[in-house]
Amino acid sequence: VDPAPARRTAAILLIGNELLSGKVQDQNFSYLARELYSLGVELRRAVVILDFVEVIAEEVRALAASHDIVFTSGGVGPTHDDVTIEGVARAFQRKVVPIPELETQMREYYGERLTPNHLRMALAPEGVELVSGQSTRWPTMKVENVYILPGVPEIFRLKLDALKERLATDPFTLAEIFLDCDEAGVAQVLFDAAANHPAVQIGSYPRFDEGADHRVKITLESKERARVEAALRELRASLPRAEILRVTEPHSPRRG
Amino acid sequence: VDPAPARRTAAILLIGNELLSGKVQDQNFSYLARELYSLGVELRRAVVILDFVEVIAEEVRALAASHDIVFTSGGVGPTHDDVTIEGVARAFQRKVVPIPELETQMREYYGERLTPNHLRMALAPEGVELVSGQSTRWPTMKVENVYILPGVPEIFRLKLDALKERLATDPFTLAEIFLDCDEAGVAQVLFDAAANHPAVQIGSYPRFDEGADHRVKITLESKERARVEAALRELRASLPRAEILRVTEPHSPRRG
Repeated sequence: VDPAPARRTAAILLIGNELLSGKVQDQNFSYLARELYSLGVELRRAVVILDFVEVIAEEVRALAASHDIVFTSGGVGPTHDDVTIEGVARAFQRKVVPIPELETQMREYYGERLTPNHLRMALAPEGVELVSGQSTRWPTMKVENVYILPGVPEIFRLKLDALKERLATDPFTLAEIFLDCDEAGVAQVLFDAAANHPAVQIGSYPRFDEGADHRVKITLESKERARVEAALRELRASLPRAEILRVTEPHSPRRG
Repeated sequence: VDPAPARRTAAILLIGNELLSGKVQDQNFSYLARELYSLGVELRRAVVILDFVEVIAEEVRALAASHDIVFTSGGVGPTHDDVTIEGVARAFQRKVVPIPELETQMREYYGERLTPNHLRMALAPEGVELVSGQSTRWPTMKVENVYILPGVPEIFRLKLDALKERLATDPFTLAEIFLDCDEAGVAQVLFDAAANHPAVQIGSYPRFDEGADHRVKITLESKERARVEAALRELRASLPRAEILRVTEPHSPRRG
């Protein structure tokens, strides 16, 4: 298990023409976003791109240089449009080589049904780290700070779940205020609170749909609970009392 | 209405901390992806970023330089975390100025309830183009090749729908083959077809969930119908006949 630094940043690269043409609706980004949040990891960027080796390589290189951890999703099967391994290898100027440990696993699993195209899935960037999990058949490939995950949502989740323990760091604290008023009516109060509490991330989210039980939700977040508590005290005092529907007290999201 | 070039590329920039922390599940990317596909526009990239002016500016600049059309989603309300207008202005080195036409509309709509924070929503990058639609109250701001859309899904859709006519170009043609076999088993046939038909985009999508009525879906796409027909003929002849569950003949996706 990695040592857990005080603040961890992450990015995800979603790879697949089918996501950008709307044929498949991605589920992995929002799943990862929720899970990382509950683990205290700050997801700072998500990028969706087409299945082009050079585009993957360039994007992996850029994201890996500017984030502590990067995840890729998709493009790891046996067919011609599965080029993520090649892209990650090129990002770090590594060769793609057969990994004996994976070949052995493929041979054991597929037996006589094994074809050369199955063995394509035993290729990886030279020097890959294989991260095994109890709930997954195949290990997860890690190259530098990049975890290579499959696009199929069921398998993405299993593989991510197996990584949780090594990803977790100190948790976020979150408080929420639900209001029954026009967002513009509280904008000045929020400007002031944001200026007074620069270390607290303050969000304001209006709802316009008929089913909503509030019109604005204010969120207060920080890794330091005392700061969230202080900002919440100020907002409770300065927001119009009659318009506060309810407050969710400072808490850390529960780990799934 | 713009003239429609033979091939149009697009990107979308989704702006909002709440998307990356998993508090809100984005709906706009997949909606835009489906709509653009049906309009013949090739969505090549989607990027999700935090509410930082400099990050927005840098990303808008990069996407606008490398795509025909760019959409932004989110960050256009009246509060401190709504910094998209400022980011787009900075991307193109323009000033943010009050737009008299928008101020007049705000005054008419809000009347006595109007506050200075409402008028923040009448600010825009200098030289903005206002695109009006019949179904939307407020016009959509366009700066260079960037359409600025709100994050609230209901309004995003209304505004996008009002732009469809000017976005449409020559349609894609799509054919699909549904198979009952392991993806690796058809990988070689697909490699050959992809090599023989470089102008056709060939995708292969396995399903592993129990509810699926097929195990692999092959997609064939191009803006030229004859090329899709030729690739489909070859695949029908070379794929194992017993494993073809059904075929969707070449067609253009219907416009919504």
